[in-house]
Amino acid sequence: MTPVLEFWYEFASTYSYPAAMRVEDVARDLGVSVRWRPFLLGPLFHEQQGLTDSPFNAVPVKGEYMWRDLARICEEEHLPLKKPSQFPRNGLLAARVALAGEEDGWIATFSRGVYEANFARDQDISQEAVLRPILSEAGADPDAALAAAASDPIKAKLKAHVADAKARGLFGAPSFLTEDGELFWGNDRLEQAVSWAARSALQDA
Amino acid sequence: MTPVLEFWYEFASTYSYPAAMRVEDVARDLGVSVRWRPFLLGPLFHEQQGLTDSPFNAVPVKGEYMWRDLARICEEEHLPLKKPSQFPRNGLLAARVALAGEEDGWIATFSRGVYEANFARDQDISQEAVLRPILSEAGADPDAALAAAASDPIKAKLKAHVADAKARGLFGAPSFLTEDGELFWGNDRLEQAVSWAARSALQDA
Repeated sequence: MTPVLEFWYEFASTYSYPAAMRVEDVARDLGVSVRWRPFLLGPLFHEQQGLTDSPFNAVPVKGEYMWRDLARICEEEHLPLKKPSQFPRNGLLAARVALAGEEDGWIATFSRGVYEANFARDQDISQEAVLRPILSEAGADPDAALAAAASDPIKAKLKAHVADAKARGLFGAPSFLTEDGELFWGNDRLEQAVSWAARSALQDA
Repeated sequence: MTPVLEFWYEFASTYSYPAAMRVEDVARDLGVSVRWRPFLLGPLFHEQQGLTDSPFNAVPVKGEYMWRDLARICEEEHLPLKKPSQFPRNGLLAARVALAGEEDGWIATFSRGVYEANFARDQDISQEAVLRPILSEAGADPDAALAAAASDPIKAKLKAHVADAKARGLFGAPSFLTEDGELFWGNDRLEQAVSWAARSALQDA
């Protein structure tokens, strides 16, 4: 059985950007399959920390550091970075659209495209007009995907994802969950999470 | 000129433990010299985030994750870990004592010993009786060191360290500052910080 690693991400999350761009490559190298799990951080931040904004805005000294740290990471990984003129951007629509692509197989490509729009091109990912070309490039039908994203089953699915994230101890993004229940938080834990997933599958075999 | 990396740490800080235990080795491998900079996080947490306790206590879901994450790190680095029965412990006295050893050359050995007491042996590092054997093992005179720690110049020095930390953008520990002013936060940035220090010194040469 191919080991599976759940990759939990929020489209507004800065550190989720470099994670989303390389998680498939790192996982493939170790024979691990990635399950893309879009969710929303807002409800968790509010409930767990009483925050109504990103912690990076609520604590400016942490925000200032984060942007510099992210720039260093992106430089090292040769990822373009343009600081979004609005932060955090509303990732609700993009998360629903992503879930609409889960079964059709374009969720990963679409998600990477949304991150590039937000963090490399400073585009407003809450707008349908921004998501349409990303959908087309991912091989999806924009009209069908946006219609599905507005449907009750997809809305309910995203709500369930957020509830699941909370129940399983998540509090930030990106986060990684292995099949044996290990939680890893942060872009800087990606390699460790993939290794854990690969190793624990070997031990089960 | 040997490049210098400032290592900023707080004795109550969990992630400062694995950083303190290996920073000298990692730095030596790249020809970097470490300047040990004990400080206190409490005043910064209070001023910057309105916290009167560790963020890991204020946000339990983050605290729970941190202890698991720390256990994984310590296992990987073969460091003993015994979760302190009191967290965070008061590191004020230990920080003052450490500063008393700055010029006599035992600050690094003493600091590692304090971390082992707090995180490997669950000892109360706010107590002189706990610090005395650590001082002896570090080659210091416990009476002289404790007397110096209680003196006004050392008290003022620690206050100045905290003010300096704040002025230079620190908000957590461990933190690393290079000579060209780059700030790195977290045990997981130690290798990157040392590399940066080594590289920027080469570029200046």
